[in-house]
This record gives sequence, structure tokens and C-alpha cells, in this order.
Amino acid sequence: MADLELPDTYISFIQNVDTIIMGQKTYHQITTELAKDMWPYPEQQSYIVTHRPKAQTDKLLFTDKDPVSLVTELKKQPGKDIWICGGANLIAQLVEHDLIDVYQLTLIPTLLGQGIRLFSENRAPKELCLLRTVSQNGVVELTYERKKNVTTKDRS
Amino acid sequence: MADLELPDTYISFIQNVDTIIMGQKTYHQITTELAKDMWPYPEQQSYIVTHRPKAQTDKLLFTDKDPVSLVTELKKQPGKDIWICGGANLIAQLVEHDLIDVYQLTLIPTLLGQGIRLFSENRAPKELCLLRTVSQNGVVELTYERKKNVTTKDRS
Repeated sequence: MADLELPDTYISFIQNVDTIIMGQKTYHQITTELAKDMWPYPEQQSYIVTHRPKAQTDKLLFTDKDPVSLVTELKKQPGKDIWICGGANLIAQLVEHDLIDVYQLTLIPTLLGQGIRLFSENRAPKELCLLRTVSQNGVVELTYERKKNVTTKDRS
Repeated sequence: MADLELPDTYISFIQNVDTIIMGQKTYHQITTELAKDMWPYPEQQSYIVTHRPKAQTDKLLFTDKDPVSLVTELKKQPGKDIWICGGANLIAQLVEHDLIDVYQLTLIPTLLGQGIRLFSENRAPKELCLLRTVSQNGVVELTYERKKNVTTKDRS
């Protein structure tokens, strides 16, 4: 992974983000593997959803709130985009409650064949709309938007 | 799925295929759900890998051969492309033995959240090369080629 150049869409992506939410395992992976020396999101307000809080700063808050309530509250506040950084369990809860507006998936050209599923524990299939695909250096970025729920009642 | 239009790359794909291999479950799904009335691959030689053979024709053969031996033999014969139609277990065995040259993946814009993994039981990650991406009507087709194994010995 270290020598793999990602598409340069990351800079414009992160510039539109002012809030980042992640679970305990993702936080652990970032701080012990991916970016050991320096917290990589100094410009954003980050929330770590965990029951094991650590020393926090203005920009890095630990919370044991239910992620569904946390995201519902944050979405009501004005601001830029909220990035659900991971992991799969946190994402699953938000997908289930239809709280994810845009899915941005990056596909690395490697078959792992095992590991944690990105999407799990959904009770019912969710239809998405493809917004765009970008491919660079063998890496594909797929951006999907969730479909608005249309019920018979809404249509009448 | 019924009203989802797939990219029109299928016709040129199938025209380059003269041999199709699938497992018992995929065969069952095709003949009981996807194409109940007529076998959809009349132009190709199809092999169904199963221990439960049914009445066969010239174009539709049932075999209880090990799929690795079957594909190894067929690849030695002249002809067009061999399509490994599915399912996941059959694919896993061929991936493991590096017998798949090209991976053509079609992504439907639906989060299932459960079901059979497309790639499973690989012992080690496999690096692929992205050949192309095509997107149409919200469906994305990704084509990858396996990387040639390069060892220190080959390079010397």
C-alpha cells in the first residue's frame, strides 16, 4: 500500500469535510499504523466513538454516544460535509438508519479474499445511484448517492 | 434486477467466449430463475462441474472433474476465451491456482449487506492490474488482469 499512489481527488474531498467520525478500531489503526507521528486531520473536528476515551483536544473528541444520535445531531448543524471514516460496524449502523447521503468507495487492485466486509448487517438491500467513477493508477473511485425513499404516499 | 439495463459490452464479451464453466448452484439458478425456458448459451460449450449429472447434450456437459484440472486442460486447447460463470467456490479454487487471466466484474448499484462473497478462501492476497472501467446506466464494469508472478529468479 505504501507505494500506491491514490487518485488526487483526496485533496478536494477533504477540503469539503469539516467533521470526521470513526470507531475505536479505525482510530487505533490510524494512530498506530497509518499515521503514527501526527494526527492526519488537523483541520477537521474528529469524533471517536468509543467507550475507552483517551486524552482529547479541541479537534479530537472521544464520545460514547450512539453513532446514530451523534450523526443525526451533527447533520442538523450548519457546516461542510461529515466524513464517516470507518469502520464497517459504525457504517452498518448508519446505513441501516439511512443516514449516509454519499458513498465514496476506493477500490485497490488487490484480491484479499478475507477480512471485514465493508457493508454488513443490513436488513434489506439498499438501492444507490452512481454519481461518478474516477480511475487513476489502477485505483478506481466510485461515488454513489443514496436513493430517496419514495413511498406510494409521497407520490400521491 | 429485471428492469436494470446492463452495459452493452455483453454481446462483444460472449462472442469471444467458446467455453463456459460453472458449478451446480449457478447452473441451478440459471435453469430455475434466470433463464427458465431456454438455455442461454447455445453457441458455447458449457461444462457443469457437479457430482449430480443430468441429461446432457453436445453443448452442455456435466463433469465431476476437479475444476483445476478441467481448466488446465481446456486452456491448452486452441479456441476462444473460457468464461468461468460462477459460483464463488469454483472461482476461489481457480484463483488459488492462478488460472484466471482476466477478471470482469459488474457492479450493480445495490448494497446487499449479506450473501456469498465473490472472492473467498484465498490464502494470500493477489495483485491485479486494472485494464478498463465502463459505466452505463449506473452499472460499472471493471476489468482486471492478473499480474504475472515475477520472482527474483525470473529477473536474474
